[in-house]
Amino acid sequence: MIQTPYLLFLGDAPDQLAAKVAQGIRDWRPENAVGQFRLPGCNVSVGLQDMTLAEAHAAGARTLVIGVANRGGVISAAWQAVLIEALEMGFDLASGLHNLLRDEPALAAAAAAHGRTLHDVRIPSVKYPIADGKPRSGKRVLAVGTDCSVGKMYTALALDAEMRARGLKSTFRATGQTGILITGDGVPLDAVVADFMAGSIEYLTPPNDPDHWDIIEGQGSLFHVSYSGVTLALVHGGQPDALILSHEPTRPHMRGLPEYAMPGLEELRDVALTLARVANPACQVIGVSVNTQHLGEDEARACLSEIEARMGLPTVDPFRHGAGRLADALSAI
Amino acid sequence: MIQTPYLLFLGDAPDQLAAKVAQGIRDWRPENAVGQFRLPGCNVSVGLQDMTLAEAHAAGARTLVIGVANRGGVISAAWQAVLIEALEMGFDLASGLHNLLRDEPALAAAAAAHGRTLHDVRIPSVKYPIADGKPRSGKRVLAVGTDCSVGKMYTALALDAEMRARGLKSTFRATGQTGILITGDGVPLDAVVADFMAGSIEYLTPPNDPDHWDIIEGQGSLFHVSYSGVTLALVHGGQPDALILSHEPTRPHMRGLPEYAMPGLEELRDVALTLARVANPACQVIGVSVNTQHLGEDEARACLSEIEARMGLPTVDPFRHGAGRLADALSAI
Repeated sequence: MIQTPYLLFLGDAPDQLAAKVAQGIRDWRPENAVGQFRLPGCNVSVGLQDMTLAEAHAAGARTLVIGVANRGGVISAAWQAVLIEALEMGFDLASGLHNLLRDEPALAAAAAAHGRTLHDVRIPSVKYPIADGKPRSGKRVLAVGTDCSVGKMYTALALDAEMRARGLKSTFRATGQTGILITGDGVPLDAVVADFMAGSIEYLTPPNDPDHWDIIEGQGSLFHVSYSGVTLALVHGGQPDALILSHEPTRPHMRGLPEYAMPGLEELRDVALTLARVANPACQVIGVSVNTQHLGEDEARACLSEIEARMGLPTVDPFRHGAGRLADALSAI
Repeated sequence: MIQTPYLLFLGDAPDQLAAKVAQGIRDWRPENAVGQFRLPGCNVSVGLQDMTLAEAHAAGARTLVIGVANRGGVISAAWQAVLIEALEMGFDLASGLHNLLRDEPALAAAAAAHGRTLHDVRIPSVKYPIADGKPRSGKRVLAVGTDCSVGKMYTALALDAEMRARGLKSTFRATGQTGILITGDGVPLDAVVADFMAGSIEYLTPPNDPDHWDIIEGQGSLFHVSYSGVTLALVHGGQPDALILSHEPTRPHMRGLPEYAMPGLEELRDVALTLARVANPACQVIGVSVNTQHLGEDEARACLSEIEARMGLPTVDPFRHGAGRLADALSAI
C-alpha cells in the first residue's frame, strides 16, 4: 500500500533511540530505502547515503517516511517546510507519529493540490473487538522488557527470520508503527482505544496451525509507568505460551523517567510470568535477549554469560549473535 | 452541563449488573432522577417509579439518561424508537455507551430537528498528556478488584462521602461514565487512547494539599484479561498511597469470561502492591471492601469476619455498613 522505495526522514533527531523507525527499516528491509534525509542539528545516522529530496527522487524514491519518533509528537515548522517541498516534488508521506499528517492543514492542502497520499500508519483501520480471553490454537511468543526501547522488536524480527530460515511456521506480528512500516500490516496498539487493546491483540493473533508461532512485537514495559497498561494488554490479549525477557544493561534509569530505577530481570520474570499465567497457565519464560549495542564484544559476552548463569535461561543478543538459541528454546516447547 | 432531573432509561437490560449507571445515579444522586423507563423484556429495576416519557416530562425531567451498559454497546432499533420519541418530546439524551448517540444518523437528525443536545460522556473532552511519573503532593487512594463490577465505584463514593462528613479534604475522581454522570466531571478512561491512559489519570489527580485525598474510581481488574491494561494505567497514573482490595464473594467466574476463575484476595494484594510500588514505593493496602449484596446479613457478617481474620485488614461492605473503618485507616496514613 505504501509505495517503495523510501527516503528516510531523520529530521533533527537528538539521539539514536529517537530514530527507531528509520533504523528498523534500514536493518530489516534495506532494499526499501534509497537514502536518508537530515536537517541541521540532527545527531543521528542510520548509515544510509545522505540525499536531498531531488537526489532521492531521481534515485527512484516515491515515499518520504518519517523515520523518527518524538515523545508526544509534534511536527515542527522546520519539518513542515521539508514535508511540503517533498509533496510538491511528488513524494507521498508516511508517518507513525501521534499527531497525524492529515491533521496538519498545510500538509493536507499540499497533498490535495499535488495528488499525493498521506499515510498515517498509527491510525487503526479496523474496529477491534473487546477481548474474550478464549484459548486459541497455535503458539505465541512475546518479548517483555525491563524498559521501553530495549530491543523487543528486534528480538521478534530476528527470531521470526530465524524460524522461517529453519522452515518453521512463523509470523512476525507488528504492534507499532515501525513494525507496520516494515511489514505493511499490524495493530498500532498505542493508538487503540483503551477498552479494545487486548481485543486488538486477539484479532492480530488468531487461531492458527498447532505448530505455527506468532512472534508478537512487544510494547512498553510493565515497569514503565507511562505505558505499562499497553504492555499488560499485550500480555493478556496475546496469551503467550512463551515469554522472552528483554534488557538493555547500560540504561541509567527508565527511559524518560529520571526518578525511576530499572527493575532487575528477576523482578520482570516474576511479575510478567504471574500476569501472563492469568491468560495462559502454561506460559514459560524461555530466554533472555540483551541489547548489547553499547558494549564492546568482550563486555557483551561477559554480560550475556553473567545473566545466563544468574537466570538459568538461554541469554543472547539476537541482533549481534543471532536468534538461534531462542529458536531452539521455542522449538523445545 | 447535563440538565437535571433525569429520567433513567433501563431499556431491555437482562440483569442488574448491566444497570450500573442507573443504579449509581439512584444511589448517590437520587434527587437527580424522577423515575425509570423500561422496555418489554427488561429484568431490572432501580427502585424508582416506572414512568412513560410523557409522565416523566410532566414531572419535570429534562434529560433521558441511558442507564444501562451493554458489552460492546449497540443501540438497537427498539431503543432508537424510544430515544427519538424522547427527543421529539423535548428531552436531551445523555449516554456513556461506546457507540455514540451522535454517530446514529437518526438520533443526530432528530436532535438537530428539535434543538436538543446529545451528551456522549464517554468521549474525552481533553487532550491528555503522556504520563511523566513525577511524584505529586497530596494523597491518593484507589480500589482494585478481583474482578470487574465488584463495587469499586461504590467503595470510592462511600469513602468520599464519609471523609467529607468528617470534615476531611476529599474528592471523588470519576474514571467511568457512571461516575461522570453522577459528578459531572472525570476521565472516561476506557475511551482514552492507549498511550495517554496513565497521563489522563495524572491529569485527573493533580498535586494538591498534603492532607487532601483523591478517592480514585477503579476500573476493570488486573486479573480480567479484557480490561487489565486499563487497570494498570490507573495504578501507575494514580500513584496511589493506599489501595483497597475489592471483592464479590459469590461470583462463579470472572465477569464475561467463563474460562477464568476468580483470583484470591491474597493474589490480588501481592500483584497490585508489587505493581503500585513501581510508581509509589510507600503504597500500602489499607483495607478490603466486599460487595455482600447477594448474602443475607448473617452470611455477610461471617464473610467479612473470615476475610478480615485471613487478610489482617479492616474488611467492610461500605455500602451496607458504611465506610467508617476505611476512612479510619486512611486517616492513619
